[in-house]
Amino acid sequence: MTEEDPIPIPEPSFEGDFVINEVLSLESGEILVNPTLHYAVYGQLNADRSNAVLVCHALSGSAQVGAWWPQLFLPGDLGLLDLTRDCVIGINIFGSCYGSTGPGSIDPATGKPYGPTFPLINVRDIVRAQVRLIDSLGIDKLKLAIGASIGGMQVLEWAILFPERIARAISIGVAPLGAMGLGLNHLQRQAIMLDPAWKGGYYQRGDGPTGGLALARALGMVSYKSVPLLEERFARKPNRYGDENPFISASAGQNGRFDVAGYLDYQGESFNTRFDANSYISITRTMDIFDPVRAHENPYAAYACIEAHLTLVGISTDWLFPPEDVRSLAAIIRAAGTRCDYREMASNHGHDAFLAEPDQLVRLLTPVFE
Amino acid sequence: MTEEDPIPIPEPSFEGDFVINEVLSLESGEILVNPTLHYAVYGQLNADRSNAVLVCHALSGSAQVGAWWPQLFLPGDLGLLDLTRDCVIGINIFGSCYGSTGPGSIDPATGKPYGPTFPLINVRDIVRAQVRLIDSLGIDKLKLAIGASIGGMQVLEWAILFPERIARAISIGVAPLGAMGLGLNHLQRQAIMLDPAWKGGYYQRGDGPTGGLALARALGMVSYKSVPLLEERFARKPNRYGDENPFISASAGQNGRFDVAGYLDYQGESFNTRFDANSYISITRTMDIFDPVRAHENPYAAYACIEAHLTLVGISTDWLFPPEDVRSLAAIIRAAGTRCDYREMASNHGHDAFLAEPDQLVRLLTPVFE
Repeated sequence: MTEEDPIPIPEPSFEGDFVINEVLSLESGEILVNPTLHYAVYGQLNADRSNAVLVCHALSGSAQVGAWWPQLFLPGDLGLLDLTRDCVIGINIFGSCYGSTGPGSIDPATGKPYGPTFPLINVRDIVRAQVRLIDSLGIDKLKLAIGASIGGMQVLEWAILFPERIARAISIGVAPLGAMGLGLNHLQRQAIMLDPAWKGGYYQRGDGPTGGLALARALGMVSYKSVPLLEERFARKPNRYGDENPFISASAGQNGRFDVAGYLDYQGESFNTRFDANSYISITRTMDIFDPVRAHENPYAAYACIEAHLTLVGISTDWLFPPEDVRSLAAIIRAAGTRCDYREMASNHGHDAFLAEPDQLVRLLTPVFE
Repeated sequence: MTEEDPIPIPEPSFEGDFVINEVLSLESGEILVNPTLHYAVYGQLNADRSNAVLVCHALSGSAQVGAWWPQLFLPGDLGLLDLTRDCVIGINIFGSCYGSTGPGSIDPATGKPYGPTFPLINVRDIVRAQVRLIDSLGIDKLKLAIGASIGGMQVLEWAILFPERIARAISIGVAPLGAMGLGLNHLQRQAIMLDPAWKGGYYQRGDGPTGGLALARALGMVSYKSVPLLEERFARKPNRYGDENPFISASAGQNGRFDVAGYLDYQGESFNTRFDANSYISITRTMDIFDPVRAHENPYAAYACIEAHLTLVGISTDWLFPPEDVRSLAAIIRAAGTRCDYREMASNHGHDAFLAEPDQLVRLLTPVFE
């Protein structure tokens, strides 16, 4: 793709809110009262409602699948989704700041935003709420659920919790987080909390911990990329945007940055225009505690029930969710007697490859549908 | 080694300050007026002063080599250094907070601590000052210079700048930092600067940015360790020191940590008792700008002059200084016509392996001396 040839961004046929008029019990023992799921629909349900595809988003994504994964909608062999055939549904997750109930929402118990008191959300909580929305649309069975990162965690829990309601499941770049990932997520939250503007999470909207969130995002970006990718892009070049030379900056300034530093700073700062710090804390904790086997007796009890045609995708240079971890998760699932394919993207892009090299992802997944 | 069998900590035969009574010009174009080098000597110089070994320290090290690398002094095959034979010298680097001139020192121009105005130090500046100290001890030629991380950078610059004054050089876990390392160091400095107690670097001694320095150190620790090591030690275990369960913590608290998070927090906090934030900023910048070829016409011009028997050591799981980078640095040096061995530690410990598995390092290096 070039700048002359932009990727078309599909428009939703519907976007709106679904309110669960109930007290929702969460895995943590806490509750959400009358929570909202914001969702978007692309294309139309067919007569027997058998063409629904759920696309689950990652940390900073939204219900607007067409906006953040437009390549999946490219025609023919270039894409995976076809809106003349499929009805694609995106649902914003609890904890986010893109329309579903999250830390920025009003807590009915206090009449004020939840802020730091927003309950700990488990991926299972998200999936159990999503199934209510799918019920409301009259859909018995999803043709496909697909997602990467936390999106892939949702897909796996769908396959486990509602085995009869999902025909195909594709989970990309996901396994329970290992110690390195848990550590990096923790440090990202610490960065937010270090910013005095965080105020224990009780900041006012528009007056949040921008420095802390920027640092958290910059560290997150490091964890989504890879050593070879950063080397190829930035190596030891000085910042391309006219900083002082990093080798000779005067003592008073000492602000010369290398190019990679300028890039990380920019990524962090621009994230502030579109994301909320308490949401960042909430969703990274949800990512941390993802563990499909937890509260089951053993992996067999968790995975044996899966009926969906399940595919796990690892990414060769992903060090947040190492491909070895994804591969061994597939092996554990197979050991439970469940059919589970493993495929691997050979990419320098690290965890972000699902967004950075969607063409390769599509080529890798096309055979799954044949 | 067990707790019942502690490693003996050798005591220096001398520890003190060496003052360079001069205006020292730095690579950055700035100056240091009458700077001090704090140094320690272990054992005694022999009659012809031919037994001097310089051990160069890493970021948080000091002149007290015996305190931070005691295993090198173990007897016989267990160690590399023998104080009945060798005279071991450790010199604290500029920028540090362990006795040599650094940001905490008084700037003669103002009568106040340098703080954030401390000049940018290049490894070459450090080595050019060290040679004055070596001169003052009447030593013509070092028998050996050895160091890891920034210590290894000093060793390489010694071999380049003073080829006739160094017989053997061993540089461990070092190459010019790549983009990943530059990015991680930058984010560590950003963490310090995010702490309101940093005050632009003008904090009072004892009232510094402890939260920021702790976060910087924790992130540094991540970069010194490896994915497999953290996984082996911590996996997904909850914090061993009685935090709330990370899976079910109550909404008000949400303080449940995984074990790796508790470990990183502890490492960060305890670092505050022994290190200074401006020193951390200064030394990581020195690490960033290390580039032996810079200001030479080409690698040949930089490396062809080396006379020392040079050995580079890479560490298999080091991702701050990847072994591929160390190996290709050795190849570049050889291409300049200089003899340069490359050896690799097979270790799960990441960059820290030189401290964590000194026994293996000793075994790897013993043949170099035969």
